[in-house]
Amino acid sequence: MASIIAIAINEMTKKRGISMAAKARKPSRASERAGQSPAGRRGRLSGVLRSDWSDRRKCQISGTFAVTPDGKKMAPTNPLLAGTGKITVYDQEHFQGKRAEFAAGCHNVAECGLDNVRSLKVECGAWVGYEHSNFCGQQFVLEKGDYPCFEAYSGSNSYRIERMLSFRPVRCANQKEARMTIYEKENMTGRELELCDDYPSLQAMGWSNNQVESMRVRTGAFVCYQYPGYRGQQYVVESDLGGGEYKCYREFGSHARSPQIQSVRRIQD
Amino acid sequence: MASIIAIAINEMTKKRGISMAAKARKPSRASERAGQSPAGRRGRLSGVLRSDWSDRRKCQISGTFAVTPDGKKMAPTNPLLAGTGKITVYDQEHFQGKRAEFAAGCHNVAECGLDNVRSLKVECGAWVGYEHSNFCGQQFVLEKGDYPCFEAYSGSNSYRIERMLSFRPVRCANQKEARMTIYEKENMTGRELELCDDYPSLQAMGWSNNQVESMRVRTGAFVCYQYPGYRGQQYVVESDLGGGEYKCYREFGSHARSPQIQSVRRIQD
Repeated sequence: MASIIAIAINEMTKKRGISMAAKARKPSRASERAGQSPAGRRGRLSGVLRSDWSDRRKCQISGTFAVTPDGKKMAPTNPLLAGTGKITVYDQEHFQGKRAEFAAGCHNVAECGLDNVRSLKVECGAWVGYEHSNFCGQQFVLEKGDYPCFEAYSGSNSYRIERMLSFRPVRCANQKEARMTIYEKENMTGRELELCDDYPSLQAMGWSNNQVESMRVRTGAFVCYQYPGYRGQQYVVESDLGGGEYKCYREFGSHARSPQIQSVRRIQD
Repeated sequence: MASIIAIAINEMTKKRGISMAAKARKPSRASERAGQSPAGRRGRLSGVLRSDWSDRRKCQISGTFAVTPDGKKMAPTNPLLAGTGKITVYDQEHFQGKRAEFAAGCHNVAECGLDNVRSLKVECGAWVGYEHSNFCGQQFVLEKGDYPCFEAYSGSNSYRIERMLSFRPVRCANQKEARMTIYEKENMTGRELELCDDYPSLQAMGWSNNQVESMRVRTGAFVCYQYPGYRGQQYVVESDLGGGEYKCYREFGSHARSPQIQSVRRIQD
């Protein structure tokens, strides 16, 4: 698999648990933007923290390439697999067992010698994981952070999923102005509501029922959830896939069984 | 139980499922604010939808009172239980079985003749549900919308919870400017980060590990999550409870077992 950077038995098998030592870090672009926003939208950083960040660009330099174990860079054959992030997956919980690092998508972890992904760390970028190979089944949005077990990444407990067999970078995340329109009926008809922020409850915004039958993502990427408060099934929708049009709920994902959507948020890396 | 408005066998037992008919609605305060914000933060509403809203104030009129089945209004004995919202709970999934409506908190659903809450609808306000009676155990933030089964409200699948035995309105939700500070160490020491928005990944904001040992909520209310993307254990923290100070992770909630926090968002009703 071209996108493997490294596969190794985790040398940290003696260090169980999920704590991470703090590392020297510089401000990310996201947090720099935050400081510039009129309302300080993305948080104000203390003087102490500002001098202690990592350089997000380090990931981006090699992010658009897949890198083989011998260090050879290869452009991904599928443009969906290109990315600007970095993700490390493990075949055992709590970052144990076999490990593989990726700077681009992976359509089947079995090809990397892993039977499953049971824990992972996102180092930069936003990713979407899938229950099955070839980007099928339940979807899981994965943002920077530590996911020590399947409960941490699956998010939905409608039925227990204990596998993630493929993943890829989210397209169009972090657009300056993410915008989408949701529609009451199929084929972009019926009542509509334009979204440009995060909405833990669409009904609190006045959407008068709990269903969205179609949507058009104009810019950026969003994740839609079955229940309020970002719970339940997740559907990642992106502006530059299929023109951003999702004409019926079956196009939300191979796992979609109903048009029930009650919360929506932007994906930003 | 003073706060019961009505308990009745649900007359809709033949109508299984989670769909709701659209009702005539007026703009909520939240959405009105949205329209006024410079960047249209909370979504732009189409002309069609604007004429079709419910009147949120209808709930607020009786919201600060507990109402007995005979219509007598009583002030809640515990100020924590007062609220400006409305929640309807059911003892069976998909809004079936015994039903009870509340305009204020409930410390034990057993006193209302329900052995458990297996589905619920929040009609207005933001609430916090608890696994056990007397506001103990796992916490579940509940915003406007439909929760047809326990998976819809529990949100965390670290272990399966199939009960919600008490709930109350969230205090201080919807403050104009919600602000809090998180700290690396206990007793508000170590590195700090000021938060005033929603953060699906604290690490993407530069928080260099996955733990928060203490916090101070200055205004408003937030919900903190164990994992990125608003997953895992939830901790509701409010500015006017105990001065908004949470000096160690054990004060986050009776269910807190570690200081692991990786995403945070404001609570707005």
